[in-house]
Amino acid sequence: MKAEILTIGDELLIGNTINTNAAWIAQKLNLIGIDVLHHLTLSDEKIDIINSIENALNTVDIIVITGGLGPTNDDITKYVLTDYFGGKLVFNEAAFQNIERLFAHRKKWINEATKKVAYLPDNCIPIQNKMGTAAGMLFTKDNKTIVSMPGVPYEMKAMMSDDFIPYLQKKYELPTILHKHILTAGVGETEIAEKLESFEHNLSKYLKLAYLPSLGSVKLRLTAKGNTAEKLQKIINDATEEIQSKLNEWIFGYDDETLESVIGKKLQSKNLMLGTAESCTGGMLAHKITSVAGSSAYFKGSIISYANEIKEDILGVQKKTLAKYGAVSEETVSEMLLGALKQLDVNIAVAISGIAGPDGGTKEKPVGTVFIGIANKEKQLIKKFSFYKNRAINIELSSVFALVQLRKFLNEYY
Amino acid sequence: MKAEILTIGDELLIGNTINTNAAWIAQKLNLIGIDVLHHLTLSDEKIDIINSIENALNTVDIIVITGGLGPTNDDITKYVLTDYFGGKLVFNEAAFQNIERLFAHRKKWINEATKKVAYLPDNCIPIQNKMGTAAGMLFTKDNKTIVSMPGVPYEMKAMMSDDFIPYLQKKYELPTILHKHILTAGVGETEIAEKLESFEHNLSKYLKLAYLPSLGSVKLRLTAKGNTAEKLQKIINDATEEIQSKLNEWIFGYDDETLESVIGKKLQSKNLMLGTAESCTGGMLAHKITSVAGSSAYFKGSIISYANEIKEDILGVQKKTLAKYGAVSEETVSEMLLGALKQLDVNIAVAISGIAGPDGGTKEKPVGTVFIGIANKEKQLIKKFSFYKNRAINIELSSVFALVQLRKFLNEYY
Repeated sequence: MKAEILTIGDELLIGNTINTNAAWIAQKLNLIGIDVLHHLTLSDEKIDIINSIENALNTVDIIVITGGLGPTNDDITKYVLTDYFGGKLVFNEAAFQNIERLFAHRKKWINEATKKVAYLPDNCIPIQNKMGTAAGMLFTKDNKTIVSMPGVPYEMKAMMSDDFIPYLQKKYELPTILHKHILTAGVGETEIAEKLESFEHNLSKYLKLAYLPSLGSVKLRLTAKGNTAEKLQKIINDATEEIQSKLNEWIFGYDDETLESVIGKKLQSKNLMLGTAESCTGGMLAHKITSVAGSSAYFKGSIISYANEIKEDILGVQKKTLAKYGAVSEETVSEMLLGALKQLDVNIAVAISGIAGPDGGTKEKPVGTVFIGIANKEKQLIKKFSFYKNRAINIELSSVFALVQLRKFLNEYY
Repeated sequence: MKAEILTIGDELLIGNTINTNAAWIAQKLNLIGIDVLHHLTLSDEKIDIINSIENALNTVDIIVITGGLGPTNDDITKYVLTDYFGGKLVFNEAAFQNIERLFAHRKKWINEATKKVAYLPDNCIPIQNKMGTAAGMLFTKDNKTIVSMPGVPYEMKAMMSDDFIPYLQKKYELPTILHKHILTAGVGETEIAEKLESFEHNLSKYLKLAYLPSLGSVKLRLTAKGNTAEKLQKIINDATEEIQSKLNEWIFGYDDETLESVIGKKLQSKNLMLGTAESCTGGMLAHKITSVAGSSAYFKGSIISYANEIKEDILGVQKKTLAKYGAVSEETVSEMLLGALKQLDVNIAVAISGIAGPDGGTKEKPVGTVFIGIANKEKQLIKKFSFYKNRAINIELSSVFALVQLRKFLNEYY
């Protein structure tokens, strides 16, 4: 079964609202084995809505429409659909009671504009709106299904989950689809593609592999599609194992995990406390670490030593080290590590010093030069990186690679 | 002039990636007077790409395509476009040098898959990629323009801003559109709407006002559209002045300014050094401050005292204060401020302590309770906030409101 998602609304079209609805709906449809061929965003224009539905009916079985169901004059979706499917608007008692219930709760009176919302086409199956006033509408045409729902995300989500998804599962015989995400960091897309060349060449016909890169990390997505869940699960498991054997050093987790959460689990299981000393990242690393709920169990804190005085006064970096090697050097990072271990009284420390840019670069140390160090009381591991010319990207990459280095250090020594 | 945005990629279609590119591109096109009729998301399928381009060419003048330019086998956009516009792929020396530059810098060797990226159609104007390997491509057909860019947001954004937008402005006669952004923080959308009710009621027909809310701040966008720039500029100036008079206390800047950059300018002009002491925000405030290029001129650093021991050992918060009032209290924040001023040796300190959640809340201090303090050597200003149940939102709001408070403090005393 194939579907198209039509999201109607000027706020989306002009880019003031990011279209999170389309992504959410697509995920839900995929989970029950429905392929989404297109997301189309369009304005509240009658002719455009009708053309888009006609186009979609040529290629898909299911059309999911959101938006344009409100009480204001620019909301025309209901009227267009009623016309298009040859019905007429009639007063719907259940929809009106729903509005009364909502307004009683909100202690507001019902005006004429709101009453209009209770009129629904007589040729649709109404979907009552538990979270708002505008009902959803289900139309059918030649065994195809067209649903129209409000654009308000929580209203739409309740209708999808409680009504529309179960309706589709009952109406159509749907295939089984399984997904597995394999998470890598510290390696580029092309290097992975090389390692997986033979694997991709011999990919089972039930299986698809996708690369989802972001700054410093690449997510691999395996999708298996077929009939029997057990068979697909075995295909996914085997493929995951093969990828694991080829990319082992770079894989840090699966599915919903993050570098931060994986590191957190490891630290907690080993009863280790972590602290950081940041210069060019200015708090970004600590922010990433503390974005994980419960991170206080293993993270004590950080010294953001943006100025050299803080490196000296609080972290105890020697004036002569700074003078001789500069703030961005292996030697300074080494002393920052010692200072962080001592001052924060932690088992593991991470230290970062670099030139985020746009200014501050030299011939020897251009913008993007970053030293990242990890240490415990016995060992230090410091590495030099050469990132880019862009400040925000350098800050992000330095933080991600600090986590990559930290994970390696933990895996090697703990 | 009308445009359609085609975003190509399975990860968008299945909803794993939210389509932020389409919204960003739509905004940029709108800013130069180009109407966006559709956003269409489709998969890496030849026939689908071609049909979508043909459809779009029937209704719009400009097609903006992103995605499918990577080195892997599922990336087919370049091959489809080369075919469709009747060209052939030739080795592009500039594109190859760009790849060499990127890889030399990263000290990696260039493999065959990457070399393929340097082949470009001979019937396009290449757009070199400053941030990555895959070049963009500009095609023309009957005075219509079709551009293809990578799906990686920062690569696409650089090409749009530096190359494609200037190209469009030169090629087409676009209406004059002037924008003015008025930036507010620390106040909600409805409160602003109330203050601006009469202003909006009497809005000039050349003028539009939009509310662009984000966490803790609301950007107001004035758009004037017409023919003569001077007339529009006067309309915008008058409107800005009127809004300024109504919302003065909440307006912190205009256009590309940020709270961080405005505060930075003020600190620098008054020769003040800033330091922070963060608990629940875990480095987010320092990260925001240091996201401004040149912030080392006025920001010395931060103590991220996530654990109480750090509050005691480094910031000098008294054990009895923590025991009696708790870490999340006015008293603790007051002592954090004293500690930050002293240990970081700064003129102004900001301290934050709160319960980000999801755990750690009590009846008296539920999740979302945050104390934010600002101090110099003479004065302290500490305020209690009650935010939400969501960890990420609480961290963001705490950081934004710390900046709002800091700006107030600076305006009042300096």
